[in-house]
Amino acid sequence: MISKNDLKYYSALLIKKYRQQENKFIVEGIKIVEEGLNSNFNCEAVFVTPAFIESSTDILNAIRKKTNNILEVKSADFQRISDTKSPQGIAAVFEKHSPKRKVTETKEKYLILIDNVSDPGNLGTIIRTCDWFGFYNILLTNNSVEYLNPKVVRASMGSIFHINIYDGISETDLLNLKKLGYFVVCSDVKGKNINSFSSEKKLIVSFSNEASGPSDLIKNLTDEKITIPGKGRAESLNVSSAAAIILSKFANE
Amino acid sequence: MISKNDLKYYSALLIKKYRQQENKFIVEGIKIVEEGLNSNFNCEAVFVTPAFIESSTDILNAIRKKTNNILEVKSADFQRISDTKSPQGIAAVFEKHSPKRKVTETKEKYLILIDNVSDPGNLGTIIRTCDWFGFYNILLTNNSVEYLNPKVVRASMGSIFHINIYDGISETDLLNLKKLGYFVVCSDVKGKNINSFSSEKKLIVSFSNEASGPSDLIKNLTDEKITIPGKGRAESLNVSSAAAIILSKFANE
Repeated sequence: MISKNDLKYYSALLIKKYRQQENKFIVEGIKIVEEGLNSNFNCEAVFVTPAFIESSTDILNAIRKKTNNILEVKSADFQRISDTKSPQGIAAVFEKHSPKRKVTETKEKYLILIDNVSDPGNLGTIIRTCDWFGFYNILLTNNSVEYLNPKVVRASMGSIFHINIYDGISETDLLNLKKLGYFVVCSDVKGKNINSFSSEKKLIVSFSNEASGPSDLIKNLTDEKITIPGKGRAESLNVSSAAAIILSKFANE
Repeated sequence: MISKNDLKYYSALLIKKYRQQENKFIVEGIKIVEEGLNSNFNCEAVFVTPAFIESSTDILNAIRKKTNNILEVKSADFQRISDTKSPQGIAAVFEKHSPKRKVTETKEKYLILIDNVSDPGNLGTIIRTCDWFGFYNILLTNNSVEYLNPKVVRASMGSIFHINIYDGISETDLLNLKKLGYFVVCSDVKGKNINSFSSEKKLIVSFSNEASGPSDLIKNLTDEKITIPGKGRAESLNVSSAAAIILSKFANE
């Protein structure tokens, strides 16, 4: 059974400040906990409710092969480490994991840059889409929602465990990447038609909030704007929908 | 100033049962209220807080040209007709509006069918994407979230006001459409590569929950499954991301 102090310590990880201080984060739900345990992230503890223990013997046996630190948490206490209304009764804490290589050491044809995206569902969905298409390097500027936010992790369906995520990307990082031959293309409402766009260069593909658009930082570094032509009356596409269309295009180049 | 009874009556529209009983729905936020007022939906009333009145004279003047029934609602009371945490202080009630033509009278090349999608954000985002690409006819089976749910309306960014939405679509409706020459293509994890799929036929393009897949009803009526090829480790794409990719493809046929 989990101690009072541990419960307090781990529930604090629902708050960004403590995640950053401790370099740990908490995830929830069977699928996402399993994705984490099967990844190269270090798992500190798994939490399960008595009801989960009773109903999910097979899952628990599989988890025991990955970690010994499985703590029982009463249902009422579990609510404190959960940010969902109807928790599945399983959660886990992982250590934050930085990519092995520096961002400037990457040789990938495509880097995906997320700038000025504040909705956690959108960021998580974009990470999941990157994972689907095999774009394994995501760069985040500081003006987007933190990718270890529980809502981001949930919307990613565990894809955060598969992707090299470089957060805190600065202007200097981007200028260095440009020196290394990267060309910045920015998805925007006015730009070159994505269907006729192609490039031999290495690309940083940037996505921003659809309403307020890219930040000044990205605007100043953009080499080419690309857009998805529309025929209807919607003012814009949701940013994660736009990302899906553009990434699908680049995945098939 | 709004009466106590009116406040009670309109706040009930946050609940599906009362929306269905009254054939009305409530929307919130400047952009969405404006989209509604500029559409052919009948607006019953607009609600504004004192703070909104003070800060948004231009918007209010524009609204006055569309409707006379603007009711002031105290901030504390406004919370009762709002389902957001930080409301903008403007909401409106519209009458539900059914498409003029029967679904079997449509001659469109593409009908978009939504089946078994329970997440309101996903449904709203798909409606917005349809609007962007000019797919103006959406069919909903009864096992999806109701499209007048406030979260759906919000995620649609007002696009529900631009689209013919046929809800309560039954097996009989779909069989009749098939008799009229429609071919049912269903987005699924295993199917024909969307990049090499094309058809001369009129199409019903169906999207379902990515985890549980299409309902038995749709499975039995499907003529062809289509899929978006992935290279990464994500098990599936979010349904609204998949819809964006597939609709973008058909929009460019």
